[in-house]
Amino acid sequence: MGKSILDYDTVALSDDKKAVVIIDQTLLPNETKLIELKTAQEIWDAIYLLKVRGAPAIGVCAALGISVLTAGTALPLPDTQENRDRNLDALRSAFLKDKEYLAGARPTAVNLTWALERMAGVFDSCAADRDLLMEDIRNRLYEEVELIRQEDIAVCRSIGEYGLSLIKPGDGILTHCNAGQLATCRYGTATAPIYLGHERGYDLHVFCDETRPLLQGARLTAYELSAAGIDVPLLCDNMCSSIMRTGRIQAVFVGCDRVAANGDAANKIGTSVVAAVAKSYGIPFYVCAPLSTVDPKTPDGGHIVIEQRDPDEVTQMWYKKRMAPENIHVYNPAFDVTDNSLITAIITEKGIARAPYDVSLKEMMEA
Amino acid sequence: MGKSILDYDTVALSDDKKAVVIIDQTLLPNETKLIELKTAQEIWDAIYLLKVRGAPAIGVCAALGISVLTAGTALPLPDTQENRDRNLDALRSAFLKDKEYLAGARPTAVNLTWALERMAGVFDSCAADRDLLMEDIRNRLYEEVELIRQEDIAVCRSIGEYGLSLIKPGDGILTHCNAGQLATCRYGTATAPIYLGHERGYDLHVFCDETRPLLQGARLTAYELSAAGIDVPLLCDNMCSSIMRTGRIQAVFVGCDRVAANGDAANKIGTSVVAAVAKSYGIPFYVCAPLSTVDPKTPDGGHIVIEQRDPDEVTQMWYKKRMAPENIHVYNPAFDVTDNSLITAIITEKGIARAPYDVSLKEMMEA
Repeated sequence: MGKSILDYDTVALSDDKKAVVIIDQTLLPNETKLIELKTAQEIWDAIYLLKVRGAPAIGVCAALGISVLTAGTALPLPDTQENRDRNLDALRSAFLKDKEYLAGARPTAVNLTWALERMAGVFDSCAADRDLLMEDIRNRLYEEVELIRQEDIAVCRSIGEYGLSLIKPGDGILTHCNAGQLATCRYGTATAPIYLGHERGYDLHVFCDETRPLLQGARLTAYELSAAGIDVPLLCDNMCSSIMRTGRIQAVFVGCDRVAANGDAANKIGTSVVAAVAKSYGIPFYVCAPLSTVDPKTPDGGHIVIEQRDPDEVTQMWYKKRMAPENIHVYNPAFDVTDNSLITAIITEKGIARAPYDVSLKEMMEA
Repeated sequence: MGKSILDYDTVALSDDKKAVVIIDQTLLPNETKLIELKTAQEIWDAIYLLKVRGAPAIGVCAALGISVLTAGTALPLPDTQENRDRNLDALRSAFLKDKEYLAGARPTAVNLTWALERMAGVFDSCAADRDLLMEDIRNRLYEEVELIRQEDIAVCRSIGEYGLSLIKPGDGILTHCNAGQLATCRYGTATAPIYLGHERGYDLHVFCDETRPLLQGARLTAYELSAAGIDVPLLCDNMCSSIMRTGRIQAVFVGCDRVAANGDAANKIGTSVVAAVAKSYGIPFYVCAPLSTVDPKTPDGGHIVIEQRDPDEVTQMWYKKRMAPENIHVYNPAFDVTDNSLITAIITEKGIARAPYDVSLKEMMEA
């Protein structure tokens, strides 16, 4: 029997520790291809071209990438105590150059910068400890990546447990975009309650929005959930009302990119459509959000800047055939903001926050 | 300067009166190609394959088709009074065979049957008038098609006038699917207020849902409105909430396939999503419906049977590349039902109906 997509880590270290290994997500679902990233340019390209995507996965990829690059940097002298200063200067110089380069691959991705800064902190503390040689520093970087990975898995698992407490066996769940294992190290965020429920025999039915224009729902979420043996009917984004009207949806779970202090949540375009429709049918709408995505400095959704993307994503299909008139004006925002009044609860790794979110999220972050 | 799509009739008679001429809508927007339909098989194929679509346009195509076929039927004898009985038998036999054949092209399309029955009524009344020869009958059929066309144009124009009274210059309008000129003989239904407003210098901004899975909004509505010189930003279906949040939408106009007695309206899949989102922002949602689409025998939307279509429409793109996993379960309804509670008003050729619709629509139909 062939391996399933879920048998691979979204981001992993090669056996010889000389490459980052990722699933090229741009080829899914037609082809499951693992690719090795060895140079700074290859790592940068993979992030820029969305071969690896999802905030946690990008962070891990960059952290692992800077570790591999640091391990591969040639030292001017043998790695001994007497050569330490010169070797450290060379290693630090290469580290900082690679860090700056990788951070530019997706400048708005908060997790990318966060992960690289964390790795730089480890580098600095190692550099200050004169007992550590270059080999030790390199090992500490790898260890730190493993910590980041384990933390990500623990956060997702905790979100999954809290989310699972809100549903029951046999339920129909609707999800949008991909906040799945392919966006994290394991479990995903919006999919975490689904994977945990599946492990426990819940028999869930997960209706999956295709998520125009880039079809992350059809290409990624439907793929990873069906690989796990979960029933995952696929639908176009505009069919969510139709399926809710049939009574087959008991809850909506979505991920998020950023949560404002008042609970307004920015996520993949179309999320707020699902929220408004769910509300009109009285169906609970849950946002799954690691506390790292809660941004207390942003007072509300109106302060979140939304990226407008290339019109070609909407007007041209995958084989570059135009599906709309030439020169048409296109509205193509990458994200939208879901008003906190439409959100039943925000599920974090520390519990289930309910309105008023300015109070509940603050308490959770300070706990 | 080249001709615009709006300079062509959606359905027309060729100059030599031997063919139905249509725009092949499956090729839009990449190619504007007029095709001539001369045989029963060609007319049937054009309707079945959606080369011509939209309830009023299909009706006119079938009526014109049966006229062309009747005109082309060979008579056994010269068309004189003494040969009338034998010639009439031959002509009627051919007429009935063609009528039955064409009616099967889209059995659920109410307008197709309605138009063919109306033509049969004309044939029968001509047959009963012994003063009329075959040439006269053939001319009467052509005249009846022209009447149907003129009635369709008058209905759309009247809907346009009523609709226009609900908006003001500079407004942003959102529409879904194609209830445009390409679906009727002129003006369209949902687009009628837009075309009339444009003629009067209203400077409207018409945000057009692409309308997955078959993209009638992107391919047809965006095309015909931009050809008319109207500003028509295109958006994916899941972006309607995002654009409404900006305050740029003042009203939604959609067409409909069937209105139940209580005002529940069946229309292209996704219509009820727009309605729920519009309601959450307090934006009026108008259904444009010729009274011929109001069905007093259907008590409510729960009694409207919704066609499920081919999963490939969702999972495969235009060049047959799969965009979803193999064997995935797909939910692909062609239409959905918008609850009357989400509809601000139903605009017919006789006026603007408001809730309770069971009363207002009944009065309008009896007026």
